[in-house]
Amino acid sequence: MTIRYPNGNAYQAPATSAGPKFASHYTNYGKRGMTLEEELNQSNTYYQTHGLAVVHKKPTPIRIVKVDYPKRSAAVIKEAYFSTASTTDYNGVYQGHYLDFDAKETKNQASFPLKNFHQHQIDHMRACTAQGGICFAIIKFVSRQETYLYPATDLFTFWDDQTNGGRKSIPYTEIAASGIKLIAQLQLPVPYLNAVDQLLKR
Amino acid sequence: MTIRYPNGNAYQAPATSAGPKFASHYTNYGKRGMTLEEELNQSNTYYQTHGLAVVHKKPTPIRIVKVDYPKRSAAVIKEAYFSTASTTDYNGVYQGHYLDFDAKETKNQASFPLKNFHQHQIDHMRACTAQGGICFAIIKFVSRQETYLYPATDLFTFWDDQTNGGRKSIPYTEIAASGIKLIAQLQLPVPYLNAVDQLLKR
Repeated sequence: MTIRYPNGNAYQAPATSAGPKFASHYTNYGKRGMTLEEELNQSNTYYQTHGLAVVHKKPTPIRIVKVDYPKRSAAVIKEAYFSTASTTDYNGVYQGHYLDFDAKETKNQASFPLKNFHQHQIDHMRACTAQGGICFAIIKFVSRQETYLYPATDLFTFWDDQTNGGRKSIPYTEIAASGIKLIAQLQLPVPYLNAVDQLLKR
Repeated sequence: MTIRYPNGNAYQAPATSAGPKFASHYTNYGKRGMTLEEELNQSNTYYQTHGLAVVHKKPTPIRIVKVDYPKRSAAVIKEAYFSTASTTDYNGVYQGHYLDFDAKETKNQASFPLKNFHQHQIDHMRACTAQGGICFAIIKFVSRQETYLYPATDLFTFWDDQTNGGRKSIPYTEIAASGIKLIAQLQLPVPYLNAVDQLLKR
C-alpha cells in the first residue's frame, strides 16, 4: 500500500530513515559493546532463573585498610586496594557437577596469549580437576566475535609447554579445533552448558 | 636430677614460671580467640594442601564508588560500601561433589536464632540442593565451644516453619541431634569433610 502526503505525493521511506537506522545501530553496537563478563552474568542469570544451574561470579577481592563508621549511616570504606584472587572468577553447580572456569577476552586474531592467565589460576583449576570438578576457560576473540569453551586439560598442556621452550600463546586454530564454539542464543549470549554436556561425553 | 646454683642451693622451678605459663596462656587463648572464620580458613588450607578438597571463602562483596589512580602506584579505592552477598560464603569441590555452606556463630546456649540467616542465602542453598549440591550450615555455639554441621534440608524446615507461626530459632538439642558434631583435630579446627562423608551415607 502506498502512503500519500496530504498533497497527494506518494511517501517514500528514505534510504536512511532515523528509526531503522537507530534500531540497527543499537542492535549491532549493543551486542558488540557487551563485555564477556556482562554476557556471562546474563547467561548465569538465565540459567539460574530457569533452574538449569547455579553459577556466580565471585566478588573482586579487596584489601581494606581504613573504614569510617559515620553516625546513623552505613560504614564507608575510605582506603582499600585491589588484591589478587587465589581462584578463578566463576564456579557453581550443574546437575551434580562442580563447574569452575575463568573468562578471558583477547583482541588478537591469530592466537590467545597465555599471559592472560596467572599461575595461581592454573594451580586452582588443576586442584579442582583432581577433585573431579569440570574446569575450563571461556575465551572470546573480540575482533572475530567468536567465543569458545576451552577445556582446562588442553590449557594445562600449553601452559606447561611454554616453560619448556614452547610458544607463549595458543593458536586460534587449536582453540577452534579442541574447544567448543559458543553461539549466542536468545537471552543466552554464552550458552556454555551445552558445551559442558559435550565435554562430559568426551 | 637436681640442678644447683653455684652456691650449692638446689634450684626449684617456681610454681608460676614465665615459660610454661606463657605457653599455656597462648594455647588456651589462641584456641578460644579464633573466630569460626579463622578456624574454617585453617581447615580449608589443610584440606587443600593435603589434596583432600578445594574449598574457598568468597571475598566480601564491595560496591566501589571512587577509585584514584596515582602515578606510579597501585589504584586506591577511596570510597566503597559493603554490599550484600547473593550466595553463601563458602563453596568448592570434594571428590566430585559440589559443597556449599555458610558458617555462623552464636553466643546463645539454648538455641540458634534463625535471623542469622538471610532469605537469599536460603534461596541459594535450595537452588544448589536442587542441582545436586551438598549444602549445609556450620554452626558454632561459642559459649559451649561446640561446632556442628547442620544439613540445609533440616534448616529449610525450620526456616519455612517460622513464617507459619513456628519458632524463630532452632533448639540446641535439635542441632545436636540432627547435626554432626565437629571435634577439632590437630591442624584441623573444623573437620567438616568427615561429617560430609556421614551426610553422604544418610
